[in-house]
Amino acid sequence: MNIAKGASLSYGARLRALLRADQPCQLMGAHDGLSARIAGSEGFEALWASGLCMSTALGVRDCDEASWSELLTIAASMVDSTDLPVLVDGDSGYGNFNNARRFSRRAERSGAAGICFEDKIFPKVNSFVSDDHDLAPIAEFCGKIRACKDGQADDAFVLVARTEAFIADKPLQEALDRAHAYAEAGADAIFVHSRKPTAVEIRSFTDAWQGDIPVIVAPTTYASTTRAELGQMRVAGIIFANQAMRAAFDAMRQLCRQVLQDEGVDGVEAQITPLKEIFALLDYHGLAEDRVRYSGAEGTAPA
Amino acid sequence: MNIAKGASLSYGARLRALLRADQPCQLMGAHDGLSARIAGSEGFEALWASGLCMSTALGVRDCDEASWSELLTIAASMVDSTDLPVLVDGDSGYGNFNNARRFSRRAERSGAAGICFEDKIFPKVNSFVSDDHDLAPIAEFCGKIRACKDGQADDAFVLVARTEAFIADKPLQEALDRAHAYAEAGADAIFVHSRKPTAVEIRSFTDAWQGDIPVIVAPTTYASTTRAELGQMRVAGIIFANQAMRAAFDAMRQLCRQVLQDEGVDGVEAQITPLKEIFALLDYHGLAEDRVRYSGAEGTAPA
Amino acid sequence: MNIAKGASLSYGARLRALLRADQPCQLMGAHDGLSARIAGSEGFEALWASGLCMSTALGVRDCDEASWSELLTIAASMVDSTDLPVLVDGDSGYGNFNNARRFSRRAERSGAAGICFEDKIFPKVNSFVSDDHDLAPIAEFCGKIRACKDGQADDAFVLVARTEAFIADKPLQEALDRAHAYAEAGADAIFVHSRKPTAVEIRSFTDAWQGDIPVIVAPTTYASTTRAELGQMRVAGIIFANQAMRAAFDAMRQLCRQVLQDEGVDGVEAQITPLKEIFALLDYHGLAEDRVRYSGAEGTAPA
Amino acid sequence: MNIAKGASLSYGARLRALLRADQPCQLMGAHDGLSARIAGSEGFEALWASGLCMSTALGVRDCDEASWSELLTIAASMVDSTDLPVLVDGDSGYGNFNNARRFSRRAERSGAAGICFEDKIFPKVNSFVSDDHDLAPIAEFCGKIRACKDGQADDAFVLVARTEAFIADKPLQEALDRAHAYAEAGADAIFVHSRKPTAVEIRSFTDAWQGDIPVIVAPTTYASTTRAELGQMRVAGIIFANQAMRAAFDAMRQLCRQVLQDEGVDGVEAQITPLKEIFALLDYHGLAEDRVRYSGAEGTAPA
Repeated sequence: MNIAKGASLSYGARLRALLRADQPCQLMGAHDGLSARIAGSEGFEALWASGLCMSTALGVRDCDEASWSELLTIAASMVDSTDLPVLVDGDSGYGNFNNARRFSRRAERSGAAGICFEDKIFPKVNSFVSDDHDLAPIAEFCGKIRACKDGQADDAFVLVARTEAFIADKPLQEALDRAHAYAEAGADAIFVHSRKPTAVEIRSFTDAWQGDIPVIVAPTTYASTTRAELGQMRVAGIIFANQAMRAAFDAMRQLCRQVLQDEGVDGVEAQITPLKEIFALLDYHGLAEDRVRYSGAEGTAPA
Repeated sequence: MNIAKGASLSYGARLRALLRADQPCQLMGAHDGLSARIAGSEGFEALWASGLCMSTALGVRDCDEASWSELLTIAASMVDSTDLPVLVDGDSGYGNFNNARRFSRRAERSGAAGICFEDKIFPKVNSFVSDDHDLAPIAEFCGKIRACKDGQADDAFVLVARTEAFIADKPLQEALDRAHAYAEAGADAIFVHSRKPTAVEIRSFTDAWQGDIPVIVAPTTYASTTRAELGQMRVAGIIFANQAMRAAFDAMRQLCRQVLQDEGVDGVEAQITPLKEIFALLDYHGLAEDRVRYSGAEGTAPA
Repeated sequence: MNIAKGASLSYGARLRALLRADQPCQLMGAHDGLSARIAGSEGFEALWASGLCMSTALGVRDCDEASWSELLTIAASMVDSTDLPVLVDGDSGYGNFNNARRFSRRAERSGAAGICFEDKIFPKVNSFVSDDHDLAPIAEFCGKIRACKDGQADDAFVLVARTEAFIADKPLQEALDRAHAYAEAGADAIFVHSRKPTAVEIRSFTDAWQGDIPVIVAPTTYASTTRAELGQMRVAGIIFANQAMRAAFDAMRQLCRQVLQDEGVDGVEAQITPLKEIFALLDYHGLAEDRVRYSGAEGTAPA
Repeated sequence: MNIAKGASLSYGARLRALLRADQPCQLMGAHDGLSARIAGSEGFEALWASGLCMSTALGVRDCDEASWSELLTIAASMVDSTDLPVLVDGDSGYGNFNNARRFSRRAERSGAAGICFEDKIFPKVNSFVSDDHDLAPIAEFCGKIRACKDGQADDAFVLVARTEAFIADKPLQEALDRAHAYAEAGADAIFVHSRKPTAVEIRSFTDAWQGDIPVIVAPTTYASTTRAELGQMRVAGIIFANQAMRAAFDAMRQLCRQVLQDEGVDGVEAQITPLKEIFALLDYHGLAEDRVRYSGAEGTAPA
């Protein structure tokens, strides 16, 4: 059980509470400590440590090119630099039930609120890329879920089971069968993924869903669907999976272009955050205060 | 000696060549593999693995809160995801000559083209933050330089000595004395730092500078000074130290605000890079091709 | 607060309980997950993640050559592979109060039961090596202690203050003054170090000690002093700091010599643990059982 | 291409030379920087970064429980703390051709001399444990080899293909077919593994082997087979895979038992290496000398 300073509930318990609230919980996708911290300071209540975004930040592809421990190191920097519950994208579990369980235990130890595994074969490829997605056998994936649940230290640690049935062009019934099997195996929430331009698949799923665990979605392609609409579909969690990274990408690309064209940075000054605002977010002022508080003696200020 | 695939020169030798070119070399500040990759694809020839930016990306402050090995791990991701020479910010060397030498060796082994140490006391504070910057004794800093130079595997690996004399409000003569001492101790280039709104300190330095090693600057506060002007001052390297991170910061903050306000991502779609462009930069298409090339057999495509 | 699976108390609370027991608690020095696991299986109740031993295992010197995060990674492997409370050697705190606090928070997050800082200047040198040990000013070290205590998430997390007064050839009064100051600053225990061949310094300290926090010692040079004798001196914790590493060193050196001489491994078979005993300690049998339990289906055993 | 300080050949080129020498090269299995350093100082010319031993040192099982990057970090510490060529155990490549290639590139960048992949399915189980070992399809494994060879920066970097045909109870012909296919795909050496109590399988293989790349073996179970005998079988490399770790295991276990029984360390003093010998191996004396050399000035000794 991992509890933040000053909190009375574990990270897992806090995420559970958010997924049981009246309104769908909004999880902001993050790829490093900074994006996590910005999301927290702007008001998001929970974070999604996105495999796609963390991989992209590392400069590698979202097909299990980064090792699971490299990704957990990044996710841990989100935990360390905010006080938000972090749901960590665990891809397909990095191998068999034993690999998944080890990932789960290490994520929990690192202070994650929960993990999410998708029902694809390792190594997986990003759901928006290929047309060739193989689903794991249901029984195998359920074994993975059970192994992870049995291995938790904190009962409140959250395991989200994500079905890629729609991504693999399977019919609704397959998605439902899988979701019900995963719930029965112990999953704490179902993440149903779709890459359609509207929420048509999501709605078909939630209309038919009989389970009593929360449903989570990521409106990446069906971006025009609002929180209110998703709430009406009884969606409990909305993951804005990669928009922050894509905004950063766009801004950095434009900046590089302009700086190269201008051969200088004068022209970009208006588009970039002043250093003092960055220093404010990261509480450099607190460091100066702490120096006085903890230096212990007059005239002996530590470096 | 660390040489990229297909290159004939080591990373260090390539950085040296750029610093001896007719025009000042432009180094783009990066904080992760992605920012490095974007800078490379847009046309920058070299990268600055910025201590401020890498720390900020981790969510911590630029006062040696991140460990040196955490920072080197990030710098290594820049090397791994581009083919550019990377100059790694080594702060004040993380301790004494022995700590600095260990950092230098590990940076070189990781594929960095060079490192940069500044003449402040460990732990240092970011030069734009505090008014309380203590300089290291000259002899001690020269010892650090000599230890690192003696410890290199590749003679071409670059050690940049950065003087914070102006940051510490010292007069020009102090900056010059230090720079000459560092050059004599073996430094391969001098980075002279200033936080004035114009390049007045820089110009005073380059006007008086008698050394024959390249001079590097970072026009963060004197942003209106152009490459042409700096070239006339005989500056050999220009570091755009933190603009890309600050552009990303601004973009992510705006995005978070809008998404929270809209309770959805529809309104930000126009401002973020489409996933397919990100996939293009990271060569997902190559992965699909490689799958055909390396899967080895008809109908047995590996996952 | 970090709690092991199945435990009702945090790691810190468990270490506190051991330091308040009738008999002095014995902490075995470990340098990796394996040495930790062996110590646990043989019956030790707590572990000392030794800076000397972890550094030596990495192949570097015990003078802060390893980064603090590299050492914490190793300490975390001890937490992950046993269920024992681990007290982590934090050297002199890796810089100022801010560096020490960051180390402390990360250690706590990793599942350590506590940390130990010694009152030397960073970078320090191993206490058994040099005759040139400089002590930190008392006020500065007390500031470090206060910063770390204020930064804990779990009140039970243990901060041990180690005084090197005797190592630096200071008199008893200096050791006592420091220990009392550290206790007042919030230290949870005092580690008094000595490199005399007998416990004469230790006894002089414990005879005079008026504080009410536990005293910890490491009988490396005064090895002949027994637990019973130390208990009579009101010592609460005994650290066997480096003997396991030194036993491994000796065994590996002898083995290398013999194998090189024999040009084969037949002659060393009798001196090395059979693989099946190693597999037993690491519970490979459990893996086979879990495979049946979690494979989910007949005849579809995961790889 | 990664070249050690003072060397004229890359690590890979040096390992190749050893595998073409008159006598079979002896590679000592290591699990951390210390075991590597001891092996080097005793006279071994090359190291085997053993997956079993590194996993065991981490406290986890040899079934891909450690991430590949965790293992590479340990292997890098062997490179950093010796000047020997290190052949890194890469298990079955951690996934498909793309995962294997990424591991290979990162290993090469870290200074490894080469890597070894075995023809099993990921996640694999240690060859001495289970009776249930599935071999990868030949074409798939050859694709992995080709991908890695195409991805090398230094042509001399060594890729060893290990066949587990005998471990999986396949006949000699299967082992030969696989070895020839792997050689054709670009493997630089063949590691043929056997767990028989004599070298009978190895001899059958080398008798029939027609390839012109070196053959490597690991006499773990057939320990009585000498280097001379293996040389007569035209074996080029002998890996003493896990004996050092097992010697350390035995020594640490005995020590823990005795210390617990004695409630003190006096009785183990005679069996453990004196600290001063450990300090000698790690060159603490050199640190003292360097301090004089690099401190730069009288009376300003750095900490």
